[in-house]
Amino acid sequence: MAENYGGSGRSGILSVVGTGPGAADYLSPAALQELMRADVIIGYRTYLDLIADIIKDKEIVASSMMQEVDRVNKAFDLAEQGKHVALVSGGDPGIYAMAGLVYEVSQRRSDSTEIRVFAGIAALNSCAERLGAPLMHDFATVSLSDLLTPWEIIEKRIRAAVEADFVLVLYNPRSKKRDWQLGKVLEIVAEGRGRETVVGMVHAATREDEKVIVTTVEQFDPQEVDMQTLVIIGNSTTYIHNQKMITPRGYRDKYQLA
Amino acid sequence: MAENYGGSGRSGILSVVGTGPGAADYLSPAALQELMRADVIIGYRTYLDLIADIIKDKEIVASSMMQEVDRVNKAFDLAEQGKHVALVSGGDPGIYAMAGLVYEVSQRRSDSTEIRVFAGIAALNSCAERLGAPLMHDFATVSLSDLLTPWEIIEKRIRAAVEADFVLVLYNPRSKKRDWQLGKVLEIVAEGRGRETVVGMVHAATREDEKVIVTTVEQFDPQEVDMQTLVIIGNSTTYIHNQKMITPRGYRDKYQLA
Repeated sequence: MAENYGGSGRSGILSVVGTGPGAADYLSPAALQELMRADVIIGYRTYLDLIADIIKDKEIVASSMMQEVDRVNKAFDLAEQGKHVALVSGGDPGIYAMAGLVYEVSQRRSDSTEIRVFAGIAALNSCAERLGAPLMHDFATVSLSDLLTPWEIIEKRIRAAVEADFVLVLYNPRSKKRDWQLGKVLEIVAEGRGRETVVGMVHAATREDEKVIVTTVEQFDPQEVDMQTLVIIGNSTTYIHNQKMITPRGYRDKYQLA
Repeated sequence: MAENYGGSGRSGILSVVGTGPGAADYLSPAALQELMRADVIIGYRTYLDLIADIIKDKEIVASSMMQEVDRVNKAFDLAEQGKHVALVSGGDPGIYAMAGLVYEVSQRRSDSTEIRVFAGIAALNSCAERLGAPLMHDFATVSLSDLLTPWEIIEKRIRAAVEADFVLVLYNPRSKKRDWQLGKVLEIVAEGRGRETVVGMVHAATREDEKVIVTTVEQFDPQEVDMQTLVIIGNSTTYIHNQKMITPRGYRDKYQLA
């Protein structure tokens, strides 16, 4: 890690810590230990609530979902004062989450604070666990949020993934304001792969209000989906058995199962 | 979970437990507790060695990498005797690993043993953590192993992913017997995305012999890569800063960083 040249005597540290899907027993010991070592915990209130017992003796800076850049700058401000700051990220900070923004802001500020990243069990891992075994073969992960990416690029990727028979993992599948994109994706899948294609969704994996659905494109109701939901669409070989979504390991019938 | 109708009085359980990248502090408490509850631990010797301290009082069935189907059938045999069996999988059993084979064998055997899956921190999570923040935007995950999938399908997917500007995550990138496929992928990337495209690799993440390289397609040497290595190839916007591989969060310059 880089040396520090901060103004204060003591060097600060900015750790980006993944807390996993929600349940405390999905938090890695490495992440837990880093939270214990930190002076300040900063994060979106929902994620902080999930680890409330662990961080109850710490200085807490809670912020709302809409202030990500401010939150990261605040974390650097505190680290530059010599503090060990833990910036909390739900799931894995390395997948569509805070790790990248921290490196980008560090570069923009020409900041020399030591940055540490602690991977977590991401939404795609925990939702795959809940659904069965959908990710046994190649998959494409696409965020349907068009806030920072034009819809044309998103749709192009969906079409490419469907055409090349990737399993599709959809992050940010639907929000109150973005209510048509998921329907459009399902249409593209129905055209390219058929209406019998298997679809699974998990809302709030490992949490009290967890909800799991395994069905087909034809039967799937996008209304069930919100921002706390991950959607996984099977490839051409994915099937349902005992309510589980299973993607075989290969296309060749090379392996004997018994 | 399904009820059990095994021959023995006591119902068996088959748990597929992800042990993460290797270091003990990346093993989730949920997975650890399940290992403690199990009567028998079964798995590939390398993964068992990594958790030797945890499982030292258990009945152990170690097997070699080449006997996956036998191993799963052995696990079901033991569960049918009423035992609680933990089948250990490195990384996350839900990503190209043992979860799918367990469901497939269960179906083939018409077995009613209760199956539990415990997600882990997968190679893609731990390697992204080591490399910086390469997975901040859409990514396609492709296994280069052509044991069960024809090379034509693999190459088609690589071309589709490059064309649609996905970050590319390569599982099973190279082995002694499969030594040309990674070079071919790098050629396709160079043609479609340019020789300056960023490439990262992590060998044996979190373990003693960990090795991290962040470079470009032009400079990258496939000889550095073996079966313990994950390779991540950036999209058209991925850059290197302070030896870290960073993919920006979006294509639109909509966000102010300070």
